Amino acid sequence: MQEDRIRHAGLRDRVVDADHAAALIQPGETVAMSGFTGSGYPKAVPLALAARIEQAHAEGQPFQIKLMTGASTAPELDGALAKADAIALRMPFQSDPDARKRINDGTLDYIDIHLSHVAQHVWFGFYGPIDTAVVEVSAIREDGTLVPSTSIGNNKTWLDLASKVIVEVNDWQPAGMEGMHDIYYGTALPPYRKPIPMEHVHDRIGDTTLRCDPDKIVAVVRTHGPDRNSPFTPIDATSERIAGHLIEFLKHEVALGRLPPTLLPLQSGVGNIPNAVLAGLAKSGFRGLTAFTEVIQDGMLDLLREGVLDVASCTGFALSPAANEAFKRDIAFYRERIIMRTQEMSNHPELVRRLGCIGMNGMIEADLYGNVNSTHVMGSRIQNGIGGSGDFARNGFMSVFLSPSTAKGGSISALVPMVSHVDHTEHDVSVIVTEQGLADLRGLTPKQRAHTLIANCVHPDYRDALQDYFDRALQHSYGKHTPHLLPEALSWHQRWLETGSMQG
Amino acid sequence: MQEDRIRHAGLRDRVVDADHAAALIQPGETVAMSGFTGSGYPKAVPLALAARIEQAHAEGQPFQIKLMTGASTAPELDGALAKADAIALRMPFQSDPDARKRINDGTLDYIDIHLSHVAQHVWFGFYGPIDTAVVEVSAIREDGTLVPSTSIGNNKTWLDLASKVIVEVNDWQPAGMEGMHDIYYGTALPPYRKPIPMEHVHDRIGDTTLRCDPDKIVAVVRTHGPDRNSPFTPIDATSERIAGHLIEFLKHEVALGRLPPTLLPLQSGVGNIPNAVLAGLAKSGFRGLTAFTEVIQDGMLDLLREGVLDVASCTGFALSPAANEAFKRDIAFYRERIIMRTQEMSNHPELVRRLGCIGMNGMIEADLYGNVNSTHVMGSRIQNGIGGSGDFARNGFMSVFLSPSTAKGGSISALVPMVSHVDHTEHDVSVIVTEQGLADLRGLTPKQRAHTLIANCVHPDYRDALQDYFDRALQHSYGKHTPHLLPEALSWHQRWLETGSMQG
Repeated sequence: MQEDRIRHAGLRDRVVDADHAAALIQPGETVAMSGFTGSGYPKAVPLALAARIEQAHAEGQPFQIKLMTGASTAPELDGALAKADAIALRMPFQSDPDARKRINDGTLDYIDIHLSHVAQHVWFGFYGPIDTAVVEVSAIREDGTLVPSTSIGNNKTWLDLASKVIVEVNDWQPAGMEGMHDIYYGTALPPYRKPIPMEHVHDRIGDTTLRCDPDKIVAVVRTHGPDRNSPFTPIDATSERIAGHLIEFLKHEVALGRLPPTLLPLQSGVGNIPNAVLAGLAKSGFRGLTAFTEVIQDGMLDLLREGVLDVASCTGFALSPAANEAFKRDIAFYRERIIMRTQEMSNHPELVRRLGCIGMNGMIEADLYGNVNSTHVMGSRIQNGIGGSGDFARNGFMSVFLSPSTAKGGSISALVPMVSHVDHTEHDVSVIVTEQGLADLRGLTPKQRAHTLIANCVHPDYRDALQDYFDRALQHSYGKHTPHLLPEALSWHQRWLETGSMQG
Repeated sequence: MQEDRIRHAGLRDRVVDADHAAALIQPGETVAMSGFTGSGYPKAVPLALAARIEQAHAEGQPFQIKLMTGASTAPELDGALAKADAIALRMPFQSDPDARKRINDGTLDYIDIHLSHVAQHVWFGFYGPIDTAVVEVSAIREDGTLVPSTSIGNNKTWLDLASKVIVEVNDWQPAGMEGMHDIYYGTALPPYRKPIPMEHVHDRIGDTTLRCDPDKIVAVVRTHGPDRNSPFTPIDATSERIAGHLIEFLKHEVALGRLPPTLLPLQSGVGNIPNAVLAGLAKSGFRGLTAFTEVIQDGMLDLLREGVLDVASCTGFALSPAANEAFKRDIAFYRERIIMRTQEMSNHPELVRRLGCIGMNGMIEADLYGNVNSTHVMGSRIQNGIGGSGDFARNGFMSVFLSPSTAKGGSISALVPMVSHVDHTEHDVSVIVTEQGLADLRGLTPKQRAHTLIANCVHPDYRDALQDYFDRALQHSYGKHTPHLLPEALSWHQRWLETGSMQG
């Protein structure tokens, strides 16, 4: 017989079903939930809360909450609450189709925040008090401490600050994860902050469990459900070419002595291109690498298994069902090589700078001068959010942004005269890669960046038009440091809105 | 008789005049000089080098250098070398009229870099080797170590990395500064970096002098000249109102318990508005404050003198002649209360985050959604550079941007539909202040930011037009998260270029 995951007698007495737990959340509350990139989010209470709110709305009663998480979650959380019109304010990140639609319709308020800022801004009081925390864990120990599940995110902060806590204990999550987590309890508010005592990716500096005053725990809900494990998409040729350019560049940097043979800790965004980069690294001959990143996806488990990667630090997972099975099967192996941290630590400026991370993230578009838009389609329509990309782009060793050179069947160019929204400024972007090639922007002036981006990254269908804009801007711009023709700077975007294509 | 400032016998033998020293610099070299905000820059060698290069040009010989410094310098350095067409590439910051003109004419290449990135990017090899360092000091000690003068900037890095070193010993600088400096020698390249052992503004963690292998010092030049000490501009009514709004806000935050009564370490940009803020703080009733900033200007000396400020950390000075006299006269007092650090430490993400600095910087313009342009007039014409503003805006406790609501006699609005260049994204801007009022953007969605900026900050002459743009964008924007009308987003700037006014 399997051991009960709830090993604290007092808390076992607080087990209720999800409906009873959801009934403890009142209209207008700020509710802070677990979840990061579709892992470790509560599986039952958000659905029950959505149903309760739909019922209230049907009865003509207003009921909305302010919703905070680690990052993106899943249809059972963001999707269900968005559909129920249950969210008055969402922060700090989402990637849900229903939530996104409402945000861009103007009916759901959303704040898009650097992931390294979230916990401290809540501690600083910038978002008011937290009424309820709803946190998934994999077990409750005899001493009342909580064993996290597949993401940590901001759970430490939520548990510390919330007035009342609802815990979901999900026994679908592997019991063998216990010991994989590292919860640093040395944080403080300024002026009482101390150096974070971490020098290497493999350093453990905290507890393996989350602390929470049992008296604050008003409900415990048993669940048995999988994370949002999406099937693995096979690597396409474009992603493979992008990955190839980047890996060739990294080898070149090692050859020049600008990077050690084991590189520096890798941060990798989530998606097909990052997975292609990880697959490329598996065949690259690199050994002894490390990852200091937010999310572990399939490719990183492969690298650990194959010995290319020695250790990986993260705050969440994004695995396919197959990879998840392998993860569960070999949990003892991975527990030695994966350290799960709070999002405050996984993205902390101090640690990202000290370790010298190599940030590798996707983008929507970049412009001639190396400014990057990660969030807004055509300048106004948000896709997901900035997430942690800025934490690594600004404070790491170097920042790499990767994208196919076109989108939507070639109707959109990822290289434009001026980006329609800026998330990463020209000061923060080291390298841009498309399937066309790689532009190393380090040490270049704005105009030199334009030359190399046109030569190496833009799709041939857009090259002449981009060169033409740049040539005419060089002639007619008010200032020649960052030449622009303002009436045309955003015209490619406007043309797409009007005609469905950026091509003239 | 005054003691000789060159107390190392071997180096005393290397004293030459500036012309001989400048002759040691060859065409094409990368030359790294001292200097930060018009303090501590070499006074003689750059002028001699400019003359030498003008002579070479007159003889038809090409001669240019790549020039790095801490930040801005003075007419004897940036001005003279720009006029001589001596600079092939300038980084990381400048504020010189002659250099600026050439940059915007497209004849001088310039790279504008976060000040916290400069030293490490040079160490990482992103800018190639440094051939010559030209560094002003106030003395050479018996053991060959160098006593810095009124700025440190990147001098440690320049002395560590340069193949050859030219030292200017300026006996105009007060001998009593010895002991004021704190040069941290615990830096390393990743993966060997350690936590920086500093927890409070007053902590001293390094040497009081700069180390330099005497064998690398190829010339020592004696100088006796003042820094670029510009007269103090009386505080105008606009600046006083801006300062008033900010100080009221700070008191409000203390009252709400979101800031301690001694606030948190203040970072302050340079100029009339920051000086007005400092003057306002003098009368505010605050006591026991601290400053962790880049530059100390007149107002900060006053605050130290009056006991409002307990301690200030900086990497350079910007004093009026009168303040400089007072500084020299009371050097023993200030030496106990001022700690001068390397620019790597004064702007370090780790320290700015740990200490929880309150960043207060000027701006050129902000837009409806809180994006800030600090560098480019009308999107293409660079003013100075981003300097350290991004280091504090991103990694501090909160970021404040201050500006009059209009410029150029009212023809330019500092609040625009979309900024023409982004240096600080919506994710990094906490508070915006004009003489009209203060907008607290923390915890607000993009559209809520627009409401508060229109209500509180925009000049009445532009309020209706900005409201009208926002209202129509709300109706017609492709996405309603960050509503924009792309054909109009930069039209205010274009109108100014065409008509001389942003007003329709």
